Amino acid sequence: MATADEADQVTVVDFWANGFGMRARIALRELGVAFRYVEEDLRVRERSELVRRMNPVHRSVPILIHDGRPVCGSINILEYVDEVWGNKASRPSLLPHDPLQRAHARFWADFVDQKVFSTQTKFLKSKGDEKAAAKAELLEQLKRLEEVLGDKTFFAGDEFGFLDAVLIPFSSMFYGYQQHGGFDLDVECPGLMRWVRRCKERESVKDVLPDEDEMYELHKKWYGIE
Amino acid sequence: MATADEADQVTVVDFWANGFGMRARIALRELGVAFRYVEEDLRVRERSELVRRMNPVHRSVPILIHDGRPVCGSINILEYVDEVWGNKASRPSLLPHDPLQRAHARFWADFVDQKVFSTQTKFLKSKGDEKAAAKAELLEQLKRLEEVLGDKTFFAGDEFGFLDAVLIPFSSMFYGYQQHGGFDLDVECPGLMRWVRRCKERESVKDVLPDEDEMYELHKKWYGIE
Repeated sequence: MATADEADQVTVVDFWANGFGMRARIALRELGVAFRYVEEDLRVRERSELVRRMNPVHRSVPILIHDGRPVCGSINILEYVDEVWGNKASRPSLLPHDPLQRAHARFWADFVDQKVFSTQTKFLKSKGDEKAAAKAELLEQLKRLEEVLGDKTFFAGDEFGFLDAVLIPFSSMFYGYQQHGGFDLDVECPGLMRWVRRCKERESVKDVLPDEDEMYELHKKWYGIE
Repeated sequence: MATADEADQVTVVDFWANGFGMRARIALRELGVAFRYVEEDLRVRERSELVRRMNPVHRSVPILIHDGRPVCGSINILEYVDEVWGNKASRPSLLPHDPLQRAHARFWADFVDQKVFSTQTKFLKSKGDEKAAAKAELLEQLKRLEEVLGDKTFFAGDEFGFLDAVLIPFSSMFYGYQQHGGFDLDVECPGLMRWVRRCKERESVKDVLPDEDEMYELHKKWYGIE
C-alpha cells in the first residue's frame, strides 16, 4: 500500500464541494495512494498562485501534482492514477481490463460529464417550464444510468471502479435535487439509490463526500435559488 | 499488418465532413487496421437504423463497430483502437508509453474538443464584434497549440500519434477560417502550418481529409454564412 514518502510526492489541489475533484480524491483512496490535500476556495474570485502556475490554461481544479508535475482534469487524473498505481503492488485497478468494457466505462463517464452535469446546471438555474423540462431530463438520465448499473453491485461488476468514482460525487447533490425538484429518488431510482448507499459504506467515499445540506446551501447561493 | 478478414470485423460509420470521425479513420489507417466504411449523411435529418441501433444514446457518428459491438465517441474510439491494435504485431501505438506524456496528450485533446471546437462554432456562426472576438480567440488557441508542438515533428515527438490524429482533421477547415476571417495562417501560425503539411504527406491523412473548398461550402450552409 502507501509508501512512507508517497504523500510528499502526491498532492491534490481541489475545493471541498467540487464533484469533479472528489473523483480524484476517491480514486487515490481506493488505490491506497497517500496524498497531501490543498484546498482551493472556489468561492473566492482569484485563483491561487499554485493553481495559476500548475494549470495556466484553465485555472481550474482538480489538479494532481505528482513529483512536481501537474495532471489536470478529473477524467485525465483517473486515467493517470490507474496507469501509475492501478493493478500494481497488490492495488486494485480502476478501469476493467477488457478494452470493450473500458470503452463502455469511458462512454458513460462522458455521458455524466456532457449530459448529466449540464442538465443539473439547467435544472438548478432555471424556473417554470424550463425547470420542469430539465427536471424530467435529469430523472431520465439518472434512470438511464440505473439501467446501465442493472443488478450489478458496482458499474463494472463486483468491484468499485472508474465509473463508480466518476458518478458517486454527484450523489452529494441528490438531497439538493430532491429539495429543488420535489421528488423522491428512492421512488424514482431505487436501484441507483441502493448503489449510492453501497458506495457510501466505503471509507474512500465516506471520507470525501461532503455534507449534503452544505452542498445544497452552496449551490443555492451559486445559482441564486431562493 | 491487416489480416485478410479484418475488414469484415471492423466497420466505421461516419460522415465524410465529420472532423471527429476523421480521427478514427486516420488512426485505423495509421495502425494498418483494415475496415469497412459506412457513410451516414448528416445533411439528412433522420439517422439511419444502424446509427439508431448502435448509438441509441447520442445517435451520432463516428461509431466503430468491432465484431458487432459498438464503440462511440472519437476519443473513446482512439483509446480503444490503441488498446486493441496499438503496439501489437509490429504496429505503432497512438498514445506515448509514459503516463505523464499520455496525460499531456489527453489534456490537449480535451482542449481541442472543449475549447477549439466551440470557438470555431462561435466564429463561424457570429457576426460583428462577436465574430471579431471569436476570431481572436481562435487564433490564440491555434497559437497555443503551436507552442505545445514546439519544434517537434509531431505532437509527441518523432512519430505521428494520438494528438496529431485528434487535431489534424480541424485543418480541413483552415481554408474556411482564412476565408471567413480574412487572415493568413501561414503568417499567424507558420510552425503549425508546417506540421499540417507534414501530416498531409501521410497516406492515412491524405486519404481521409476532405477537399477544403467542399468543407467550407458545407459549413457555409450549416452556419448560414453568406
